[in-house]
Amino acid sequence: MQDNKLVFRREVMPEDVEAVREMILSTGFFYDFEVPVALELVEDRLESGQNSDYHFVFADIDGKPVSYTCFGPIAGSEGSFDLYWIVTHNNCRGRGIGRLIIEETHRIISGMGGRLVVAETSSLEKYAPTRHFYTRIGYTKEAQIDDFYKEGDGKVFFVKRL
Amino acid sequence: MQDNKLVFRREVMPEDVEAVREMILSTGFFYDFEVPVALELVEDRLESGQNSDYHFVFADIDGKPVSYTCFGPIAGSEGSFDLYWIVTHNNCRGRGIGRLIIEETHRIISGMGGRLVVAETSSLEKYAPTRHFYTRIGYTKEAQIDDFYKEGDGKVFFVKRL
Repeated sequence: MQDNKLVFRREVMPEDVEAVREMILSTGFFYDFEVPVALELVEDRLESGQNSDYHFVFADIDGKPVSYTCFGPIAGSEGSFDLYWIVTHNNCRGRGIGRLIIEETHRIISGMGGRLVVAETSSLEKYAPTRHFYTRIGYTKEAQIDDFYKEGDGKVFFVKRL
Repeated sequence: MQDNKLVFRREVMPEDVEAVREMILSTGFFYDFEVPVALELVEDRLESGQNSDYHFVFADIDGKPVSYTCFGPIAGSEGSFDLYWIVTHNNCRGRGIGRLIIEETHRIISGMGGRLVVAETSSLEKYAPTRHFYTRIGYTKEAQIDDFYKEGDGKVFFVKRL
């Protein structure tokens, strides 16, 4: 598979609902309640098309999605975007796909007039790899609110300035 | 008017849409685009009742609203609330009404299982009185993301732990 080409696309297809579910579950990183939230965003895009506030990049190998990002402009801001999701299938981790898809995502956000991207994650020890990942792909931890998600589970804001 | 009693209520009435518009405009503090956003939340509550994610406290004097708060639980959190709006009519400023309505609001949030309240505002000089107000009513500035709203206009997070 390492020889196979990564193909990026922005169009969302009905099959992506199941593919997203599979990617998310493969990581073992998300809470159960987060899965339907992620799928709703895909479905919103499928229903509303260009009118959706949710934008996607999918990275396919041999026509099968192995990674995706979901992002969108932050209402009330000029040029700030939320990175809602960035997920790579567990089978494809460690190959630099996350970095490639985030770079593609940043190019698209820039093209949409974006200048700042915010990624929120948890302060829990469990998410240390996620925080490390954001740092590696050029994000900086700029803010934290302790106990935000629950007692002992804070919200960390990583920011990438484009 | 100082002798007249402040009466709190949680029920939202159709007349509150206009009252909220008037209170917001009286302050001269908000952007034009923010007014319909505020009114939408009132309308959402009127339409959905208890099923709305938006909760309100109104403070009336002689049956007329002079101050209000709008708040709600933060999805994906356990016990964290957003304070979306806290507005006192300009004619009634400087009488401690803001402090009274926020205390009533905190009591209600506690009763709903809330333990943390987040109020977001701008870092612009124009909002120094707002930031000062939050500090005075017991909030602490816990985080900031520079340039969030636009270049030079950061987002400041004030937090109250109940």
